[in-house]
Amino acid sequence: MNIKILSAELRKLLGRYFKDNNLSYLNELCRDTHPADIVETMKHMSHKEILFIITNIDSNYASKIFSYMKSKQQKKVLADVSDEKIVEIIELMYPDDRVDLLENIPEDRSEIILKKVAKKDREDILTLKSYEDGTAGSIMTSEYASINENATIGEAIAKIRKEAPEKETINYIYVIDNRRKLLGFIPLRKLIVAKSTIKVKDILSKNLIKSYAEDNQEEVAKKMKKYDLSAIPVTDKEDKLVGIITHDDIQDVIIEEATEDFHKFGGVTIDRSDSDYSLKSRGIINMVSKRIPWLLILVFMNIFTGAGIAYFENTIQSAVSLLFFLPLLIGSAGNAGSQSATLTIRAIATGDIKLKDWFNMFLKEMIVAISIGIIMGLAVSFIGFFRVGPEITIIVAITMVINVFFGSIVGMSLPFILTLFKMDPATASAPLITSIADIGGVIIYFSIATWFLKDIISVVS
Amino acid sequence: MNIKILSAELRKLLGRYFKDNNLSYLNELCRDTHPADIVETMKHMSHKEILFIITNIDSNYASKIFSYMKSKQQKKVLADVSDEKIVEIIELMYPDDRVDLLENIPEDRSEIILKKVAKKDREDILTLKSYEDGTAGSIMTSEYASINENATIGEAIAKIRKEAPEKETINYIYVIDNRRKLLGFIPLRKLIVAKSTIKVKDILSKNLIKSYAEDNQEEVAKKMKKYDLSAIPVTDKEDKLVGIITHDDIQDVIIEEATEDFHKFGGVTIDRSDSDYSLKSRGIINMVSKRIPWLLILVFMNIFTGAGIAYFENTIQSAVSLLFFLPLLIGSAGNAGSQSATLTIRAIATGDIKLKDWFNMFLKEMIVAISIGIIMGLAVSFIGFFRVGPEITIIVAITMVINVFFGSIVGMSLPFILTLFKMDPATASAPLITSIADIGGVIIYFSIATWFLKDIISVVS
Repeated sequence: MNIKILSAELRKLLGRYFKDNNLSYLNELCRDTHPADIVETMKHMSHKEILFIITNIDSNYASKIFSYMKSKQQKKVLADVSDEKIVEIIELMYPDDRVDLLENIPEDRSEIILKKVAKKDREDILTLKSYEDGTAGSIMTSEYASINENATIGEAIAKIRKEAPEKETINYIYVIDNRRKLLGFIPLRKLIVAKSTIKVKDILSKNLIKSYAEDNQEEVAKKMKKYDLSAIPVTDKEDKLVGIITHDDIQDVIIEEATEDFHKFGGVTIDRSDSDYSLKSRGIINMVSKRIPWLLILVFMNIFTGAGIAYFENTIQSAVSLLFFLPLLIGSAGNAGSQSATLTIRAIATGDIKLKDWFNMFLKEMIVAISIGIIMGLAVSFIGFFRVGPEITIIVAITMVINVFFGSIVGMSLPFILTLFKMDPATASAPLITSIADIGGVIIYFSIATWFLKDIISVVS
Repeated sequence: MNIKILSAELRKLLGRYFKDNNLSYLNELCRDTHPADIVETMKHMSHKEILFIITNIDSNYASKIFSYMKSKQQKKVLADVSDEKIVEIIELMYPDDRVDLLENIPEDRSEIILKKVAKKDREDILTLKSYEDGTAGSIMTSEYASINENATIGEAIAKIRKEAPEKETINYIYVIDNRRKLLGFIPLRKLIVAKSTIKVKDILSKNLIKSYAEDNQEEVAKKMKKYDLSAIPVTDKEDKLVGIITHDDIQDVIIEEATEDFHKFGGVTIDRSDSDYSLKSRGIINMVSKRIPWLLILVFMNIFTGAGIAYFENTIQSAVSLLFFLPLLIGSAGNAGSQSATLTIRAIATGDIKLKDWFNMFLKEMIVAISIGIIMGLAVSFIGFFRVGPEITIIVAITMVINVFFGSIVGMSLPFILTLFKMDPATASAPLITSIADIGGVIIYFSIATWFLKDIISVVS
């Protein structure tokens, strides 16, 4: 349904309800509309209207709506929903979604609510909650389809048919032994075409890709991408099946990690506990505090560049026209460096290059950087030719080649070095590379100039 | 299987083959190993060894191996595989994968091969190939599970059982009318629990999310993410079902788009036709040509910064200590701008903010920028206090506030303006923002200085 029509429809219903107290049409509308659309419509509704819908519709629909809400939205709505309703909603949600939901309720209240949740669900929630943020365990769900190796295909299908409605996905049926140890899997499409009398263990695929609950979520995302999996089973250290991770959770991880890298590369501080990356909903103070740290660090670095300029004051005084080329020369070093860093960081993030590729990439970057440097040097000679004498032009051209080379090598190496020290390569942000290139660029430029112009300088001073 | 063991195993087999000509174990190994692992192992093998495996194993395994290879790898191997073998492999591949494979064979040869492919497959390939790169049509597959609305559940299950082995996914069964018009879908898990005598049209979900073949792939990715879909049906303009897009294709799109944005933001030229983003396999000339354009454009912009400095030569001569603060002041403008641009570009890319949010974001950015500016101004006053007199310190502090404000506003606005003109917001790269901030920063700094120091300057000149 069109979002605008949906929004008008929902508002009309709310008005009508106060008159004739009839909720059936509202429930029908929720049944026929995708919960993601309802969540989008809610952006244009008042808090009161949203609360009214949530508390009056079938909890089944309410639970679906909650699972599509963003963390901030959940927090706001949950604050005014009764404990009883929340318990109902939690019991209807998928395990991974309800853990997320509980995280959006203040701790003391969530403890009270948790006590009212059915024992089986509560234990499940506590287990899932025990995994650290950023691990496979923290994003997995415990509602997967599993079957004992000794069951027949007929028994397996009967079990799946009975349980299917509550599972998040039944694409793959995981095969376990009596001690829940994961042995393999059967794709549902293979199961439904198999003879019903043979045993599960006779057709299971042992060619299984799995992950451990403690694995880093980024590694799991890479694995799922490598093998094109729509779901991956998760086991504990003893290989016992504890959950699965589905494609949609992994998409969130991929987008989150890309956003994180992007922000880091732009010099914005990243806070791991801060799961909501929405720029729109962030407060002023949060924004300022995320941006100030790097700006201050970089000011400190820029002092060295300033000191570099001050150190070469004599050189500058003797040929003020050198200043004209300063932005262009240090700018080019920074720009070439940003390019190299960008390419390297992203290639490391997508798994295209690894730490061991360092030397090969370094050799290649040297050739690329010298080539670019020479082209840039020629371009700048052209400008120099029209503006200053041959001596300055030579200084500028040589500096350009060395600066571009210097910037590129720094830009390429820094992400590798950070990786080596187990830091995120994206910490080698564009502003950081630019600042390093500035310091280096000023020293290179004026050192060359001082050497070339030593006769003139000695006359001046 | 561990990659190292696998690699050793494969090599051993190759050696053994030359002695006793027994291929059965090699085929067994390919059956028991995930094709993605075999592809990874091949990175450490010679071209001859790879060719030997591909041409001697069952084409069924070979087709799977090809579908996990990168474009460049496919090109290299296919060049030395016979037309007959390629035809066999193509007929065993999923439709979307074989279109990709054919794109890695030179046009004249691929035409010859295509003529040898079975008519039904050939027509299918030609239809899929007709969709423009970057559209939903170009990434969809034509092997989906569909059923007529008038079939009974029993008939539907029988059809699915028969066809399942060749489908890429049967999570959702799409329901069509006699003219192939898409009416809705039934999740497989709902189908297998339904009574076999009722009709498909009685249980189908009409609450269907779909896309058109002409839609932009990025939009489709956003839609699949919004609704958490593992597959989305694709129709032509008359709503006739033509294919589906599965989660794995969408993951590729998400990663590709993030890489593209990242590269653009780092000032590297992006070439749409260039589907392979691997840094590792790129040639020197390709790298240089992707990096030179922006570097030259930025040099041109830096000339203005140089001209700005030259224009204020008198001011600089009268207080050379101003130069010490130059890198720090223009650097801060650039850094604050890079941060704003980063946050804005990523928020637009993930759909967090839209064009219509411009005004609100602008207001918020103004407050954030002024706050940051004031903090930075205080920090720099501290440095000024120890190094220069109160007059210069005031100039520097005021400039810092205005520069940070200027950089931030440019960094936030430029991505919006580019979006308004239907350009990619990531074109507002860190180097571009830095260069604009440099020009603005120099003019702001020295204008303020000239005004404050006007008495001294007139004495000097």
